[in-house]
Amino acid sequence: MDRIEKISNWLKNQGADCAFIHSKENVFYLTGFLTNPHERVMGVFLFPDEEPFFLCPNMEVEQARTAGWNHQIIGYGDHENPWHLVKIELEKRKLAIEAAAIETEEISYAHAEALKSVFSGAEFVSVDGKLKEERLVKDKREIEILREAAKLADYGVEVGVSAIKAGVSEMDVLAKIEFELKKKGIQDMSFSTMVLFGEKSSKPHGNPGLEQLKEGDFVLFDLGVVFEGYCSDITRTFAYKHMDEKQNDIYNTVLHAETSALKMCKPGVRIGDLDKKAREIIEESGYGDYFPHRLGHGLGISVHEYPSITHTNDLLLEKGMAFTIEPGIYLSEVGGVRIEDDILITNDGFETMTSYPKDQMIIK
Amino acid sequence: MDRIEKISNWLKNQGADCAFIHSKENVFYLTGFLTNPHERVMGVFLFPDEEPFFLCPNMEVEQARTAGWNHQIIGYGDHENPWHLVKIELEKRKLAIEAAAIETEEISYAHAEALKSVFSGAEFVSVDGKLKEERLVKDKREIEILREAAKLADYGVEVGVSAIKAGVSEMDVLAKIEFELKKKGIQDMSFSTMVLFGEKSSKPHGNPGLEQLKEGDFVLFDLGVVFEGYCSDITRTFAYKHMDEKQNDIYNTVLHAETSALKMCKPGVRIGDLDKKAREIIEESGYGDYFPHRLGHGLGISVHEYPSITHTNDLLLEKGMAFTIEPGIYLSEVGGVRIEDDILITNDGFETMTSYPKDQMIIK
Repeated sequence: MDRIEKISNWLKNQGADCAFIHSKENVFYLTGFLTNPHERVMGVFLFPDEEPFFLCPNMEVEQARTAGWNHQIIGYGDHENPWHLVKIELEKRKLAIEAAAIETEEISYAHAEALKSVFSGAEFVSVDGKLKEERLVKDKREIEILREAAKLADYGVEVGVSAIKAGVSEMDVLAKIEFELKKKGIQDMSFSTMVLFGEKSSKPHGNPGLEQLKEGDFVLFDLGVVFEGYCSDITRTFAYKHMDEKQNDIYNTVLHAETSALKMCKPGVRIGDLDKKAREIIEESGYGDYFPHRLGHGLGISVHEYPSITHTNDLLLEKGMAFTIEPGIYLSEVGGVRIEDDILITNDGFETMTSYPKDQMIIK
Repeated sequence: MDRIEKISNWLKNQGADCAFIHSKENVFYLTGFLTNPHERVMGVFLFPDEEPFFLCPNMEVEQARTAGWNHQIIGYGDHENPWHLVKIELEKRKLAIEAAAIETEEISYAHAEALKSVFSGAEFVSVDGKLKEERLVKDKREIEILREAAKLADYGVEVGVSAIKAGVSEMDVLAKIEFELKKKGIQDMSFSTMVLFGEKSSKPHGNPGLEQLKEGDFVLFDLGVVFEGYCSDITRTFAYKHMDEKQNDIYNTVLHAETSALKMCKPGVRIGDLDKKAREIIEESGYGDYFPHRLGHGLGISVHEYPSITHTNDLLLEKGMAFTIEPGIYLSEVGGVRIEDDILITNDGFETMTSYPKDQMIIK
């Protein structure tokens, strides 16, 4: 069953007459068309038993066709009211919309109100959860792309490591990483690249700056790329020149937590148990208070999507799920260590899509 | 009168009991605090006669204080419902909210619904327009920052020009520009940098790729930086090695249109007349059909804000307004030329904040 058909069937089960799906990510998921029309209205209208149509600015029509959308398209010019064109189409089809599914977490209040008037006051239900659920298991093509994205993240770390030398700043190294990736044609990183030295590595959301590298500093890289619409996300931590005993202890604890959670990965395992396992190892080493975030997050069109790897998640791992595993320990006076890989669940186990080595702890 | 006071007075005039302002840009404008809490709820609650309060995740509280917010802060943990904390605070203050102002174009439907239940069903009015209006005229500090941001955009073009040589690709040059800006500490460009060669320069929203530069190609740079929360935006067009007669003609037409519109800039001039002037010049040269966009846009915390420089805008220029002027001509078989500067309206005229030369048309 294709993606559109699944949503149509779901609408039928929900007793909803229509879905309007407009976020960049979900439009890409349903149509193969990756674009960002900014403030302009764009989206797919789906129905339980009717042909869907795609609403977009005139200048996007050709690209939507090229991307593979072979149902109806309603294009509009800057002088036209797109909602009015939708109203006309619904009247033409003699459709009365009493309940409509929208992305309640994504659509603006103003657009939801406009839609409400097009539908003459329909009730809204949320389609957010359904789409997150659909995107949870990746198909063959998505997996191939995720693997390529992960390789490019590995390359980013490789470039970063080779740029480390006395006196460089965090921004110098960050600039070099993005420079080499852009030369390979990567237009967007999947989030703001992080290169953090010394104590700054202890801030999970630290901002890279112009501080210079010192001997004995931790060097933390957290980066990913967007490749053909899909994201990667890797973290590696090193020490420059030498590593003291404390640094060594937290590095090995994080690495042990990461590999232990990794080894549990296979279909049928409860997701929460991965987080629990990694957390136990860190707690037993006495660093339980210094691992303040979840173990990981799903990866796909969004850099953070389902499944969320938290100890409360009762969902079972399934073939085709893709997510990160990224335990960390952050000591404000020493620095932080985080190790993160991109994981794919296979038939009977897992594959680590990122593969930059984790045992080369010191950059000489 | 300070920014918060102005919104409070506006609420009084509107008969609204509260405003919730949550977009990253407007939170920065009102509090000086620049952050992006992603999916977490954050925002300022303002009242006609009450002390405002700031709602944010616990981990942002300290930074909000450092940024200068000296009113009440309600912080919340990941396990708490922030809306519930707001409800308690309103009850403590014995405030009944019957009409609330929200950013209808920015807030998600789900958050608006949550807010509606906190307010026990209040009516919503839009505060979007009021905030756009307030941000229209820049103060002294904002102007200083905009000038710095513009200088960094000039530098980006300078780097780009120096990277042009036989055989480079668009992405090579783009990577070099961002590399040098990042080394200066610039973390974000104000939009995806554009470097377009040859016929691709005729696409106002073209994507840079791995195509190689050829002699006689147009080379179009469109770029800007975010500096201390404010944006710049510059476009320059060149030809590589030589320029033919047609290219020369469209370049000179665009330059004439740009400088003519520039020269009109001073307080009291109708904004629409700038667009009209530039458009007339391009039409008289026979290229009227090939200038498909407005003349420019306001510039500030957002790279596109008020005022919009369209022929229908009846607003009068005022000291402190900042915006772009960027006419263009796009011929699909020849390429496109766009020239863009960042303008500030002064006491009795204008200042061009960007200043990269426009008479060096050929890169040798």
